[in-house]
Amino acid sequence: MRKFVIDMMGSDAGSAMALAAVKTYHKLHPEDALILVGKTEEFQEAASFATLVHASDVIEMEAGALEVIRRKESSMVVAMHTLLEQHADAVISAGSTGAFLSAATLILKRIPGVLRPALVTGFPNLGRGNFVTLLDVGASNTNTAEEIAQFAYMGSLYSQGAYGIEKPIVKLLSNGSEEGKGSPVGKEAYPLLKADPKVDFQGNIEASQIFAGSADVVVTDGYTGNIMLKSFEGMAKAMGKLMKQGFTKNFKTKMGYLLAKSGIDTIKDTMNTKKVGGAMLLGVNGLVVKAHGNSDPEAFESAMEVAAKLTDAKMIEKIAAGFAKVEQK
Amino acid sequence: MRKFVIDMMGSDAGSAMALAAVKTYHKLHPEDALILVGKTEEFQEAASFATLVHASDVIEMEAGALEVIRRKESSMVVAMHTLLEQHADAVISAGSTGAFLSAATLILKRIPGVLRPALVTGFPNLGRGNFVTLLDVGASNTNTAEEIAQFAYMGSLYSQGAYGIEKPIVKLLSNGSEEGKGSPVGKEAYPLLKADPKVDFQGNIEASQIFAGSADVVVTDGYTGNIMLKSFEGMAKAMGKLMKQGFTKNFKTKMGYLLAKSGIDTIKDTMNTKKVGGAMLLGVNGLVVKAHGNSDPEAFESAMEVAAKLTDAKMIEKIAAGFAKVEQK
Repeated sequence: MRKFVIDMMGSDAGSAMALAAVKTYHKLHPEDALILVGKTEEFQEAASFATLVHASDVIEMEAGALEVIRRKESSMVVAMHTLLEQHADAVISAGSTGAFLSAATLILKRIPGVLRPALVTGFPNLGRGNFVTLLDVGASNTNTAEEIAQFAYMGSLYSQGAYGIEKPIVKLLSNGSEEGKGSPVGKEAYPLLKADPKVDFQGNIEASQIFAGSADVVVTDGYTGNIMLKSFEGMAKAMGKLMKQGFTKNFKTKMGYLLAKSGIDTIKDTMNTKKVGGAMLLGVNGLVVKAHGNSDPEAFESAMEVAAKLTDAKMIEKIAAGFAKVEQK
Repeated sequence: MRKFVIDMMGSDAGSAMALAAVKTYHKLHPEDALILVGKTEEFQEAASFATLVHASDVIEMEAGALEVIRRKESSMVVAMHTLLEQHADAVISAGSTGAFLSAATLILKRIPGVLRPALVTGFPNLGRGNFVTLLDVGASNTNTAEEIAQFAYMGSLYSQGAYGIEKPIVKLLSNGSEEGKGSPVGKEAYPLLKADPKVDFQGNIEASQIFAGSADVVVTDGYTGNIMLKSFEGMAKAMGKLMKQGFTKNFKTKMGYLLAKSGIDTIKDTMNTKKVGGAMLLGVNGLVVKAHGNSDPEAFESAMEVAAKLTDAKMIEKIAAGFAKVEQK
């Protein structure tokens, strides 16, 4: 039995979206305990299968990271405290990313030995037919070389737990594949990664090669990772738009679309960041899964499935055990 | 009449590719003077319509930026010197980007007042139906705030000259659209951009919004810009691969592809970085256009067309005049 805390508020679509997702999840996993946090009057009907916890405030999407310090009655902050008090396995939220990251870091605290938590996400690895793990994609704005080197180990544990990749190949994001290329901090991280016996580091990778299959884990600083992630998003959206324009060009292309639809839907599913199931903050004492702010019930439910997978993989315990083994200075 | 110097060597495909491109260009623009540099024995047949200049050495694709200093007999270095000596309008090359950038900077020198040249490229702006200018996409590895602020002015002049956008809207690439978000150097550049009366600066933009139409020019440091550019490339390639898989899924989808082909080809044309015509190094005393290393004749010819457009727009003269007006400290 898993135990999840759900922040019902804070997404673009509000609690009705989260409620629909929770209902679906409950149908698929009736044995799991669900604690729903937010304006309980909006999802009273869930009382029949879940525990409801009231929180009167909602942190809005545009809220800054430090907002959480003074918004103690917000669903997001109450959800984090509930995770600790109820010894739950995970918190899932579709609220403001900045606020979510700082709430998790401030309330759940870092796992001992972890220098800096990292936001991690997975993308389809077309070359290998599984997933490539990317981190940090935006928890930090700047990182030290030591932090980037640590991301490699956390990312490797994630790749094992979330995707079942036994010996993940780690690469460092860079503007060139040769050693010696990279940002100043990337160049500093390179020898640290090379010297780390816990990871299978195999050099630099360019952003254009991420989907091609030579790496299972790609590490970078949070600013660069965020730019990469959003560049992927931007191009995927642009190509989607162009595809739509292409298919609606004339009667023939419309017919073509109808015939090819099953193939096209496969593309959409593969690159659908919603379906991939959100991002996770790695390195704090608890599974914290962030669904997209504009999630629909399907996307939010898929973030819950990610939480289930990572719970079963004992992700937090593995990171804690891994970092406990590393000698602390 | 325009006068172009062509580095015939250094692309993945060698001089035969460049020769095919030059022939096409000559047919379309018989009045233009073409000076072809490289192993002349490989393109002797072009002597009937072009001037051939011999260069015995070829800088290979993997060559480092500083290689150019000692490779004086290389086609790339000879091409740069030829531009100066023959008062030509532009150099076009498909050789190593690093070598090309340093050869251009070392031999042609910066335009007075320009702190740092920038590699600039254009992408389709789906929101506005024209092109968005991105810089620096990789001439530098790090930039100062002052350099980034200058890119805005150079980029605006480029946007006017290359795309005919009269009053280009400039935005700063960032990990959030709000003021106060960004990399350390980006945050420093923000007030400089805001204070510059020569550009129409309208705040931050996220990489996911580049194609959506709110900016005509997007500035960033060279490392981040390069990551963004290659992320676009990677996602475009991945989606192309998925599309192919989708269309070849079964008989029905294959039929669909045949019917929709004209629409699909439009997508390919729009996002085809080859067709967009390479990148340009802005800020040196000469038009230097870099075609993709894996250019085919069509792509290389299109880079020559870009050079023609920028020659007609008097791009170099405009940058020189613009920076001459700016008071030098």
